[in-house]
Amino acid sequence: MRLSSAFGPGAEFDFLRRVLEGAPAVESPWIAVGPGDDAAILAGDSEAYWVLTSDLQVEGVHFRLDWIREFEAGGRAVRAALSDLAAVAAEPVGVLVSASFPSTMSVERAESALAGAADAAAECGAGVLGGDVSRGGRDVALDVVAIGRSRSPVLRSGARPGDVLWVTGVLGAAAAAVGAWCRGTEPSAEARERFVRPVPRLREALWLAERGIPSAMIDLSDGLVADAGHLAAASGVRVEIAAPAVPAAPGAGTAEALTGGEDYELLLTAPPGSLEPVVAEFESSFKIPVRSIGRVVVGAGVQVYGADGRVLPIATPGYDHFRDG
Amino acid sequence: MRLSSAFGPGAEFDFLRRVLEGAPAVESPWIAVGPGDDAAILAGDSEAYWVLTSDLQVEGVHFRLDWIREFEAGGRAVRAALSDLAAVAAEPVGVLVSASFPSTMSVERAESALAGAADAAAECGAGVLGGDVSRGGRDVALDVVAIGRSRSPVLRSGARPGDVLWVTGVLGAAAAAVGAWCRGTEPSAEARERFVRPVPRLREALWLAERGIPSAMIDLSDGLVADAGHLAAASGVRVEIAAPAVPAAPGAGTAEALTGGEDYELLLTAPPGSLEPVVAEFESSFKIPVRSIGRVVVGAGVQVYGADGRVLPIATPGYDHFRDG
Repeated sequence: MRLSSAFGPGAEFDFLRRVLEGAPAVESPWIAVGPGDDAAILAGDSEAYWVLTSDLQVEGVHFRLDWIREFEAGGRAVRAALSDLAAVAAEPVGVLVSASFPSTMSVERAESALAGAADAAAECGAGVLGGDVSRGGRDVALDVVAIGRSRSPVLRSGARPGDVLWVTGVLGAAAAAVGAWCRGTEPSAEARERFVRPVPRLREALWLAERGIPSAMIDLSDGLVADAGHLAAASGVRVEIAAPAVPAAPGAGTAEALTGGEDYELLLTAPPGSLEPVVAEFESSFKIPVRSIGRVVVGAGVQVYGADGRVLPIATPGYDHFRDG
Repeated sequence: MRLSSAFGPGAEFDFLRRVLEGAPAVESPWIAVGPGDDAAILAGDSEAYWVLTSDLQVEGVHFRLDWIREFEAGGRAVRAALSDLAAVAAEPVGVLVSASFPSTMSVERAESALAGAADAAAECGAGVLGGDVSRGGRDVALDVVAIGRSRSPVLRSGARPGDVLWVTGVLGAAAAAVGAWCRGTEPSAEARERFVRPVPRLREALWLAERGIPSAMIDLSDGLVADAGHLAAASGVRVEIAAPAVPAAPGAGTAEALTGGEDYELLLTAPPGSLEPVVAEFESSFKIPVRSIGRVVVGAGVQVYGADGRVLPIATPGYDHFRDG
């Protein structure tokens, strides 16, 4: 079986498209899903596919060590990588943790970053299978490869017009924490916790996938509107979001809930009537909400509607590393 | 089947040992070889194991952009990662390329680094299956995950007393290039080429493994003596190297051949009489030498002998990122 997905809009994806279009194509019977989705999916055995994802976090870009401690940065890198497994409904098997530390950083602090990574992996049921460490350079760089298995991977590309759009949890807390730090204040304990220890929704994704509910899924790393755009592009549909229905975290505003990144919740689409009957069971099982926040229609892109039914101008559709200006 | 390997000596491995000993153990039926070897090996299907490796290269540590161009740095990172697949005799399937570029670097130069990575992957028969790109930070960071398959992985841990020690190719050219740059001169075209475009010995490793020849194997990234030490530690044996038998690259001295890193040749052990009869066939197939350079004995560590049979004091056993001083 060859599954397929496609890059969403945005300068980062334009950039990747140019690089990949210029590269010679390599065909392999072992590749089920190539670039474009949350993870690469390899032809597996009779039971499941192997799922692989790589996530590179760099000090000063993805975290700052005057905001969080080394142990927390290591754990957060692992949690972000495992969230990409959740996005395709894969069970974690292990991680490879590669790290580069400035030579000015003590061995104890470097060790603490890796210990945080190992601790977070174990908490999520993943072993540390290897990696690569070095010293030098000016910034801490942490790359986490997450390895998982999935019986029926859920891709970004399966949304169909008529599907309902759902999101797990509450959004905007991580962005609220970053906002506080950038203003020189301390975030609330809850917002800080959500930034430092995001919970990859692995069990939730498996629960939904086992019931055949999601037609498409993605994890929220770039922000709700931006990630909805990736899902819309991969599926060849338009996604409509009702802003008042989007559940904001305590202390987070609408803008943070709509466009703040790094919540690592799940955004999914499902045929109408498929998730509705099990919302209460989901919420009592996992102690987090799952809410319908919009729908899938014919077209392209993302549109956000306010309480009065008017289209909201969303000026910052999440974080795009390669956007001009 | 659970295979096993162990960390070699050195501060980097002591560091990893401390981190991993502190981490909760995670058992999984899917993990055939965990941390300690060149790659993580996953239980595969009836035909082969899946083999995974991650290699993080950081500007200023592993390469400098006043030495080589972005396109070359991207290609080199992929080649180094694929060399870890060669070390366990795996066939490449694909790579995940994650990169972080300083925001002061033009999009064209960033694109060139990824194009170099994609080009090198395709040249070695591997597709680019995904990755992760971002901008910010002060140094270019490139992480390459190499994914391969192996019918019978060769580990570092299989060397037995009585085995013969062999090395492919000629050594020291990459170190000679770095030496020239550090002295402010230009390396020879040949040395530069070996630094910029190391050839992962994938076909050579498969050829040897298909014939059941290597008892243990490792690729030379830290330097001959250091990597022989990793192999000796993983196998629980002592490795003896005859310095005059080590083939030095043109323009490389004995020290560079013995301790210079990043040659990405194969170091292997084999029972006596197993490789000898096919040396000529190997050399005519691959146009590189394969030479016996020592032997495996009972004991621990690495000892290097000079032409007069005396033990040479090897002061710098390769590169160790976590060594004191």
